[in-house]
Amino acid sequence: MVVYVRGVGRVKVGDIWDKSVLDLARDAASLAMEDANVSKIDYVVVSNMTSLFLNAQGNLATALIDLLNIRAIPITVESACGSGGFAVSEGFRLVKSGARNVLIVGVEKMSDAVTQDVTTAMMMAEDREYTAISGISFVGLNALALDYYLKKFNVLHDDIMMLPVIDHEHASLNPYAQFPYKITLEKVKNSPPIVDPLRLLESSGIGDGAAAVILSSEKGDVEISASETAVDKFRLTERSDPLWLMATDLAARKAYEASNLSPNDIDIVEIHDAFSITGVLSLEDLGFAKKGEGAKLVSSGDIRLNGKLPTNTFGGLKARGHPVGATGVYQVVEIALQLRGDAGENQVDGAKIGLAQNAGAVATSVSVTILEKV
Amino acid sequence: MVVYVRGVGRVKVGDIWDKSVLDLARDAASLAMEDANVSKIDYVVVSNMTSLFLNAQGNLATALIDLLNIRAIPITVESACGSGGFAVSEGFRLVKSGARNVLIVGVEKMSDAVTQDVTTAMMMAEDREYTAISGISFVGLNALALDYYLKKFNVLHDDIMMLPVIDHEHASLNPYAQFPYKITLEKVKNSPPIVDPLRLLESSGIGDGAAAVILSSEKGDVEISASETAVDKFRLTERSDPLWLMATDLAARKAYEASNLSPNDIDIVEIHDAFSITGVLSLEDLGFAKKGEGAKLVSSGDIRLNGKLPTNTFGGLKARGHPVGATGVYQVVEIALQLRGDAGENQVDGAKIGLAQNAGAVATSVSVTILEKV
Repeated sequence: MVVYVRGVGRVKVGDIWDKSVLDLARDAASLAMEDANVSKIDYVVVSNMTSLFLNAQGNLATALIDLLNIRAIPITVESACGSGGFAVSEGFRLVKSGARNVLIVGVEKMSDAVTQDVTTAMMMAEDREYTAISGISFVGLNALALDYYLKKFNVLHDDIMMLPVIDHEHASLNPYAQFPYKITLEKVKNSPPIVDPLRLLESSGIGDGAAAVILSSEKGDVEISASETAVDKFRLTERSDPLWLMATDLAARKAYEASNLSPNDIDIVEIHDAFSITGVLSLEDLGFAKKGEGAKLVSSGDIRLNGKLPTNTFGGLKARGHPVGATGVYQVVEIALQLRGDAGENQVDGAKIGLAQNAGAVATSVSVTILEKV
Repeated sequence: MVVYVRGVGRVKVGDIWDKSVLDLARDAASLAMEDANVSKIDYVVVSNMTSLFLNAQGNLATALIDLLNIRAIPITVESACGSGGFAVSEGFRLVKSGARNVLIVGVEKMSDAVTQDVTTAMMMAEDREYTAISGISFVGLNALALDYYLKKFNVLHDDIMMLPVIDHEHASLNPYAQFPYKITLEKVKNSPPIVDPLRLLESSGIGDGAAAVILSSEKGDVEISASETAVDKFRLTERSDPLWLMATDLAARKAYEASNLSPNDIDIVEIHDAFSITGVLSLEDLGFAKKGEGAKLVSSGDIRLNGKLPTNTFGGLKARGHPVGATGVYQVVEIALQLRGDAGENQVDGAKIGLAQNAGAVATSVSVTILEKV
């Protein structure tokens, strides 16, 4: 059974004070249903990370079915910041095994909490009893990786800091981006270190958002040829190499194999750049650069919209925004728009195959989804 | 593809102070893997409701895969107090569509919080902006239903209060029950009303627990012939009849149709008796009694272990215990043990077909699973 993307929808990421988590989910879902021109949905898959903690609302897929006033089977899934990609994988499996239309909605509502609560919520993605309890945050974990990377590969930090610069370039064209403006390398360099050597402008922010796709067995303009997931050890100390995102590597290999493609075939990429270093490591472990050479791929400019491997074409986690449980669905929406030729100012000419990578914790649970123009 | 139950495991429900939510999940999972004698698992499905709020731990399926040191695809699902049944449905679909072994673990760790936090967490299963915000609790919602039922059908409250009495009879034989002792009707009647007319001993308690099943395409002693889910309106005021559990009715009809069975074919039943009235309404909407006659079915004694329709054979939510996200998996474990003839003191002679009903919110999201002896 071929799995098609029949419709997409998303809201602009930001501090959306006048909408609840369910309002946001409904808005994105309605846009996707309108885009797909379908009313009969078999399954509604909702991905979210923090709603129980920050919004006091559980049972999201059930509640969304009620709000949309449709009859469907609800599935609420969570895999930390990788929740959205896992929801896409779930929908992919459902259509593969016979479902006709599956509505996937990623949603996160983070602005209704004080920042400290959000940081607390984020750490619930980690191993509570070993890592989170130590008091370290995800900024700290990624700063350790950045520090080690710079030393191990003798790389210029400037090269890595070009990732947010290019993200913002792309976001400046995207009306749905949380931060739709350009920033200079100087600005990134001069932004305060949160955990040395990681700078503020190398880090994704806090935002509200929702994105939706309708996967279907009925023919559409875009096909999903693979959506694979993998798991790494939680504790970095138990990994053979803390700079090797094993789950990204494994999920990508499985996805390339399932779609009979290789990194060379990919025209556009969405990477999980929660922090600049995560993005660089992801480019390497997805097979686009050798270990230690991801930073050069970034600074070469090849990842710009007009480059050889346009990456984060709508701004990525850094600049489109990172409403955690929604991010993986935004990525798939954005690639589908590119392949349909509906990407507006962000359009990459001739894009036929795209890959999205979404990760939970320090790339502990990872999904890789490959989309192709039909 | 036929879906078999290859192994089961569960821990005794209670206040388990020395185990974390992940410890509990691992314990149940290990027992099921040992029982099934399998090490290769394709998917790990974990159901839980409150862990993010009460235990500060998300990404449970990923964390469990890490703890078990296996390689598998993680799926974490939530549907309030019905989470466990939804996880079983998820596993059922996965095996139906080609997976070989799926490990399903329901887990909940509620004792590490003050009682008020647990009540707060429970209400997150409801529609936040309409129902929960009013300040009503699930006890209140179910007390309203009980009051209306007593008046509408002119039923004796004593008849309904026999449900916890019989639950405790069954639990008194079950070493895994949270409350393994008998109670008298007098004791239920004299227990304090929490919300009039609902009494303390008509209500399930707070407990920690974990249960696991391994579903497989490889032949076992027990087969799952159907696992269906359905959704009702959240707001009771939008339901055509607040005493009609529409989602239970619909899920049951779908399950009977899928398994080519009728209520007459069912030997044993597990019902979602979070409150006595919920249990009575469930018996009716599963097709075992006409509307208004569920209370008589209870008080007739037919639901005893030696009755015509043994119900909650290990004690049900009231007396085995109700660790919310685990409950639906306990039900399936218990029916599988009955059909295998491994139910010990709780054994129902000649049980060949069993049905489990698990519900989230006021039976807003419901699953019905039918198991058959092979």
